[in-house]
Amino acid sequence: MEVKPLRVLIMLVFLAIIWFIPPPWGITVQAWHLFSIFITCILAVVIGANPILTTAIIAAVVAIFLGVLDPVKAYSGFGKGFILLIVVAFLVANGVIKSGLGNRIAYMLVSKFGKSTLRLGYCMVLTDAVIAPAFPSNTARSGVLYPITLALARGSGSKVEDGTQKKMGSYLMMNCIAGLTLSSSLWFTGMAANPVGAKMAADAGVQGINFGSWFLAASVPVLASLIIVPFLLYKLFAPEVKQTPEAPKAAAEELQKMGPMSRDEWITGITFVAMVILWALSGTLGIDKTAVAFGGLAVLMVAGIFTLEDLKSQGDALGTFIWFSILYTMSSQLNEMGFMTAVGNQLSADLEGLSWPVVYVAIVVLYVVLHYVFVSQTAQMLALYSVFLGVAINSGVPPILIALMLLFATNFFAAITPQGSSANVLCAGSGYLAQGDMYRMGGIITLTNLLIFLVIGTPWILLVT
Amino acid sequence: MEVKPLRVLIMLVFLAIIWFIPPPWGITVQAWHLFSIFITCILAVVIGANPILTTAIIAAVVAIFLGVLDPVKAYSGFGKGFILLIVVAFLVANGVIKSGLGNRIAYMLVSKFGKSTLRLGYCMVLTDAVIAPAFPSNTARSGVLYPITLALARGSGSKVEDGTQKKMGSYLMMNCIAGLTLSSSLWFTGMAANPVGAKMAADAGVQGINFGSWFLAASVPVLASLIIVPFLLYKLFAPEVKQTPEAPKAAAEELQKMGPMSRDEWITGITFVAMVILWALSGTLGIDKTAVAFGGLAVLMVAGIFTLEDLKSQGDALGTFIWFSILYTMSSQLNEMGFMTAVGNQLSADLEGLSWPVVYVAIVVLYVVLHYVFVSQTAQMLALYSVFLGVAINSGVPPILIALMLLFATNFFAAITPQGSSANVLCAGSGYLAQGDMYRMGGIITLTNLLIFLVIGTPWILLVT
Repeated sequence: MEVKPLRVLIMLVFLAIIWFIPPPWGITVQAWHLFSIFITCILAVVIGANPILTTAIIAAVVAIFLGVLDPVKAYSGFGKGFILLIVVAFLVANGVIKSGLGNRIAYMLVSKFGKSTLRLGYCMVLTDAVIAPAFPSNTARSGVLYPITLALARGSGSKVEDGTQKKMGSYLMMNCIAGLTLSSSLWFTGMAANPVGAKMAADAGVQGINFGSWFLAASVPVLASLIIVPFLLYKLFAPEVKQTPEAPKAAAEELQKMGPMSRDEWITGITFVAMVILWALSGTLGIDKTAVAFGGLAVLMVAGIFTLEDLKSQGDALGTFIWFSILYTMSSQLNEMGFMTAVGNQLSADLEGLSWPVVYVAIVVLYVVLHYVFVSQTAQMLALYSVFLGVAINSGVPPILIALMLLFATNFFAAITPQGSSANVLCAGSGYLAQGDMYRMGGIITLTNLLIFLVIGTPWILLVT
Repeated sequence: MEVKPLRVLIMLVFLAIIWFIPPPWGITVQAWHLFSIFITCILAVVIGANPILTTAIIAAVVAIFLGVLDPVKAYSGFGKGFILLIVVAFLVANGVIKSGLGNRIAYMLVSKFGKSTLRLGYCMVLTDAVIAPAFPSNTARSGVLYPITLALARGSGSKVEDGTQKKMGSYLMMNCIAGLTLSSSLWFTGMAANPVGAKMAADAGVQGINFGSWFLAASVPVLASLIIVPFLLYKLFAPEVKQTPEAPKAAAEELQKMGPMSRDEWITGITFVAMVILWALSGTLGIDKTAVAFGGLAVLMVAGIFTLEDLKSQGDALGTFIWFSILYTMSSQLNEMGFMTAVGNQLSADLEGLSWPVVYVAIVVLYVVLHYVFVSQTAQMLALYSVFLGVAINSGVPPILIALMLLFATNFFAAITPQGSSANVLCAGSGYLAQGDMYRMGGIITLTNLLIFLVIGTPWILLVT
């Protein structure tokens, strides 16, 4: 971890400038100060002045010491169930790998789809898209995909500890993040906030968003994205290992060598399947998803598959816990202080009076770009959806078009930053992805999704609704 | 981590029996069920059925799945600042050791007091007792003592990774836990809850507990304990290395070899001193102690003294975070559900009508023993202090005697379990102490303190008040 004095200096100057600007648009001074710290923190990560963990800690300390953030609130993120879910999923993934089950699944996938890295990439996003309607939590779904992606990477000889992340793992991890944005865009039940958003649309007078109409409207743009994005990543964020014509045969041989499933694999497999089922049913049965993850971890611990010795080397999970909790809290505090709403109101007020296609594009683009400052998809939807929807409808945008498009955007903008969704965090914390790459590729993925949804999605939605 | 099927079976039977007993004393069914899970969890740790982390996770999962604990509340402990303080102090301690500063301080102590392990033990508890009045947080104080204790242990060749904990480290860690109970008993400002307790006493009509009267009353029993406890531990929990006549000379030579303080040591030293000063002044200046710890960590990270690479091996800190947060939450929920108050009321009702010396001893013993189910000294004081004080005064116990004795007990009972105080947790999580040993020696330390306070403290308090 190097200090980059010039960049740190730039950041300090930047912070000071923003800090002392008089808050516009009726934003309170406290909210503005928190924003200046938060945006400096995000920028510091983007320009690589410091790693995300260090930056987040510094931001929290500065915010607390300057009286901008109340300490009790500042630490509340650590007690959120969905953040703990990520931490526990990290540990469970470790158990899945260690038991050998991760390798077995990876070998099976490679033996069928492993002729090229690109095929593996498609295989993973399709798997995600297929299982998504049964998973109203994209975070839990990332807990299913992550250990398999990790095993695929490691099985191909792409390992963090060897410095060979770029061989295949970096691509697969970024691809996994991209896939999650699409699988949750595709289904009404693919993300917890989707039905909530449909309810908000109905409250604003836009009826008729349900499982069927959602899927129909989303199908064509999502399909286009599912085809284009893994390929684009494959070109722009190329894995070093591309063609692996001999991999399926080798994987089949490895599977042979592994022989029948071991005791550890059986236990892990049954536990993992049980977790998947309980996660999928959690909404229906009212089961707490984090408790499911803890339960799975407990089984692996009691069975001696994940040991206290294994835990020792899982400090990264703690690091991820810390930075994500801090950024989540800062963003949600910014929201609570009314900052987000003030910005939303102002921006949408500026748009009034323009022709509806201009307003439509501007609203969607703004909504997506603003996700740079949100650390939760749901929080942004709750803060901005109704405001943006109302402005667009008042400007003559077809209500169902803008209602659906903003809901899709709530999902497809998730990759824009590593912290843009809790579903990103496992891959972001895997060690396979450099921060700069995550911002760069996350931006490209989001831009691509945005263009596809605007260009292909708009006429399609108008056609089918 | 071995599973011990017989012990696990015993635990399950135990849980079932307690669970199905009809709740006595007007305790609610939900509170009783939570109690049955919590007490089984504590017992499982005591008899070594499972490590504390596994046990705590299982307890949380069982409590959530059986609907005994609300998930949102179950995870709230993770967001408590004083628990985060422990986690961050773990990481800072790692930086203090790595910079070389820990070794330097340890060598300096050894070169002066290092002729025997016992002398080192006394040196540490005296240091603690001397700095305590300036530290209204025993948790923060443990963050000061822990890295030095750790460096002392490691410097003597007693290392967790070598399996040589018992050489010296185990003794020093347990001694540190014992010392913290005494340093906080000694001073009105040695623990955050002490002035709160004095206020509660005043509200019950017992005036005159202040900095001076507290110190006077505590001085003789604490002095006796400070002399007896390190020696008793030295006999009953003997370090393998006892006499080290050549150690001071060797340490002086090592100091010579180290030469002048390095850049890393200077930075760490200044940071550590700044943290100590800010911790000590936190009450006066209204500074958040956890933010101070985060700030110190941030400095060490930016300076490259604590790196992301170092973080990887700090998974133990995550484990400690998890088990302590869970146990803390269960205990505080038990308290919120009225369980503690019901038990306190019932037990003290049973005592009414007996002669005051009997009531006095019984009340103090009960108050101490009940700490087995509390994971916070302050919580127990808030839950039981007023009730117990009232019963004792009604039975004719001299008010100032029982008022002071219960306040002292609130401090000296802290070693009874590893989770009995947040000040224990750093040493408990150090890897130097087996769980069985912590419960066994913690019980002995607490019993010794109890006897000393009852036998020596009682006449002394009556004499000077």
